[in-house]
Amino acid sequence: MNSTEFRKMGKEMVDYIADYLDRIEERPVLPEVEPGYLRPLIPDSAPAKPEKFEDVMEDIERVIMPGAASPACTELETVMLDWLGNMINLPEDFLAKNGEGGGVIQGSASEATLVALLAARMKTIKRLQSENPELTEASILSKLVAYSSDQAHSSVERAGLIGAVKMKTIPSDNSFSVGGAALKQALEEDKAAGLIPFFFCATLGTTPSCGFDRLLELGPICNEENLWLHIDAAYAGSAFICPEFRHLLNGVEFADSFNFNPHKWLLVVFDCSTMWVKNRADLIGAFKMDPLYLKHDHQESGLITDYRHWQIPLGRRFRSLKMWFVFRMYGVKGLQEHIRKHVRLAHEFEELVRKDEQFEICAEVILGLVCFRLKGSNRLNEALLKNINDARKIHLVPCHLGDKFVLRFAVCSRIVESRHIQDAWAHITKTAVKLLRHEVLQQK
Amino acid sequence: MNSTEFRKMGKEMVDYIADYLDRIEERPVLPEVEPGYLRPLIPDSAPAKPEKFEDVMEDIERVIMPGAASPACTELETVMLDWLGNMINLPEDFLAKNGEGGGVIQGSASEATLVALLAARMKTIKRLQSENPELTEASILSKLVAYSSDQAHSSVERAGLIGAVKMKTIPSDNSFSVGGAALKQALEEDKAAGLIPFFFCATLGTTPSCGFDRLLELGPICNEENLWLHIDAAYAGSAFICPEFRHLLNGVEFADSFNFNPHKWLLVVFDCSTMWVKNRADLIGAFKMDPLYLKHDHQESGLITDYRHWQIPLGRRFRSLKMWFVFRMYGVKGLQEHIRKHVRLAHEFEELVRKDEQFEICAEVILGLVCFRLKGSNRLNEALLKNINDARKIHLVPCHLGDKFVLRFAVCSRIVESRHIQDAWAHITKTAVKLLRHEVLQQK
Repeated sequence: MNSTEFRKMGKEMVDYIADYLDRIEERPVLPEVEPGYLRPLIPDSAPAKPEKFEDVMEDIERVIMPGAASPACTELETVMLDWLGNMINLPEDFLAKNGEGGGVIQGSASEATLVALLAARMKTIKRLQSENPELTEASILSKLVAYSSDQAHSSVERAGLIGAVKMKTIPSDNSFSVGGAALKQALEEDKAAGLIPFFFCATLGTTPSCGFDRLLELGPICNEENLWLHIDAAYAGSAFICPEFRHLLNGVEFADSFNFNPHKWLLVVFDCSTMWVKNRADLIGAFKMDPLYLKHDHQESGLITDYRHWQIPLGRRFRSLKMWFVFRMYGVKGLQEHIRKHVRLAHEFEELVRKDEQFEICAEVILGLVCFRLKGSNRLNEALLKNINDARKIHLVPCHLGDKFVLRFAVCSRIVESRHIQDAWAHITKTAVKLLRHEVLQQK
Repeated sequence: MNSTEFRKMGKEMVDYIADYLDRIEERPVLPEVEPGYLRPLIPDSAPAKPEKFEDVMEDIERVIMPGAASPACTELETVMLDWLGNMINLPEDFLAKNGEGGGVIQGSASEATLVALLAARMKTIKRLQSENPELTEASILSKLVAYSSDQAHSSVERAGLIGAVKMKTIPSDNSFSVGGAALKQALEEDKAAGLIPFFFCATLGTTPSCGFDRLLELGPICNEENLWLHIDAAYAGSAFICPEFRHLLNGVEFADSFNFNPHKWLLVVFDCSTMWVKNRADLIGAFKMDPLYLKHDHQESGLITDYRHWQIPLGRRFRSLKMWFVFRMYGVKGLQEHIRKHVRLAHEFEELVRKDEQFEICAEVILGLVCFRLKGSNRLNEALLKNINDARKIHLVPCHLGDKFVLRFAVCSRIVESRHIQDAWAHITKTAVKLLRHEVLQQK
């Protein structure tokens, strides 16, 4: 969609909203639809090619309005999570239409990790108490231990803090991935010490270097040891819509829950963090509250999804509309092109770095992130980062990989092109040369 | 703002966004402002009278764009929470400009309650461990107990479940309020049993009947007994912008945290749940995580607010813009008129109920909610509710008050007028007459 089209469609949307409000008294107060009304009204999967804005708008009146905000908000979300699950070829266990699983939109990966950890905590407490009724909740809680990679996002540690359980990090290897042996060792030590391992948060696409934990090793261990396996693929997940990147998700079949953020890399505006579980009853078991003022006719029918039991807040926004519009306006092919362009441009940047012997690449470039640095001290690289960012032309965020201070070049923008990569590299090398000259002068 | 104005302004906004994207490469990647840049650029308080849309839009370019999304998003939020705090005459301890307190936008009251409970949990654990270093976190946690009214929202019980602490309800009196004596009794019993009371969630404007807990009795007890006092005024809070309703907030000076939802009754679109704390260090103590990729130049300066330590998610939307637009487009007087109209219409409905001897009012009408029922059995009232809602002309949500099944008439809409109240009452009485006639026929 170019700027001219955006102006036209945006203004049509403003008129639609005004017309809706002008004539709101003509609409029924409650919808007349039955549970499950929406799914048959739209296709089973996202279109391959872009559709017209006019067609999407017509469907607002045909598909959404008869179901008003509720249940349309819930039902469209369920179907959009199935669409997106299909786009990344998620195992059918995770899809709503196939039984016990299903997807939900959370606000952020932090919330998805927390919700998974809380569900795992409750499931483990219930299991242990059913095996051993004299165990108190407090005594179990004091022994529970959760795990993640030492490269995992800070929100994982935070989930442990909120959930009042121990959270331990498993050392990653030299490709910044956690493998089965490292997890196995931690489990043996902790079980010997009387602790109860119950949760592992694997990361696909770590924040520092876009490393991938080894799901095919970790998954069977988690399943054998009764650990809830949650996968945080906040950034990388969007790439799995491309068949050539889907292998990075292999092993998801062992997981209990999986999450990524379409708001990061799939052109859906913030916030939209999509989470799937294999067994929705596990989430509901952790959170369910049913006061009279929230009761409804289909309460116990099993026909509907009550997302309020799947999340921390009670209220919800109609975020699946964003997914519906984006999937249809771009088509799956359009979204794949967007991902591929970013990965291609990241490799273009990688090549520029590799050709310059002053610099080094610090981690394998798999998707849109390039970790690099000047050969030399951390102090030098800290100065380089400061000088680059102070010029306010590009913005880089650093990380530590091992004991090295590393610069991270992330391809993000919807409108980025090769010339931006070239300009950025020219700016970086110019800044580096100036810095190195200054260092030499100071040494004299 | 009428429909014609909305169309004009909405389309101007679409053009502004398109222009912004067309020329985005001309803008600096990082803002050049210093911490605290925004506050001096706008007034200290919300305008009494409405301003023009054009003036607000000009301020977007003058006030927001120089600070881009960050830090403008944070700084406008801080100032808007001060504006709103002033509008409800919140004690200055809660305002950011006066030192250690400040406000934040959460997504929902559920999250505000949870965040307060987690902060209280951490604060209590730290205090007890500093007094008695051999106490383990697990042993303290197993004894912590939190309280709320038996009329409190289900999200309060849920916060206890998530936080892994006991949550007990205090019996409310016959005006559906909790008083000091009832809390005192629970505290004495629980302390005698070896438990550690640490948190009380008071409700101003309960969900079932809009009852108000007796803050002036409860507050001093909480302060003496080292209980964190959190106030959930999700619905009622908006009314406190009217001086004639502000007395309902008396006692807030004893609280540690206070929350209400401008998205419920202050014309700000969902979600926008505003929360204030007296001591921001308490929140930060519960959540702080500082990985390198989230570090920034002003990290330890004390000059800036890092809202990521104040909430469950990490990422945030720019929700304070909604408040800024609404406060300026309506002015405080316009918002007060909105509240007053709803309360007036609720009393209009109350009068209609009182004049009809078939019906009874079930709780004092204080704001925009009227609890009423047909004199008679619960079964009769359940049938009445079903018949009313099935007609899809109006929608009522029930509650239990004591052992009575009660209908709740809530005045909500922005465009509601007296004729809607009269129509609703006509519909209710017509439905009731039909139901009663049917009952009589069945008895024959």
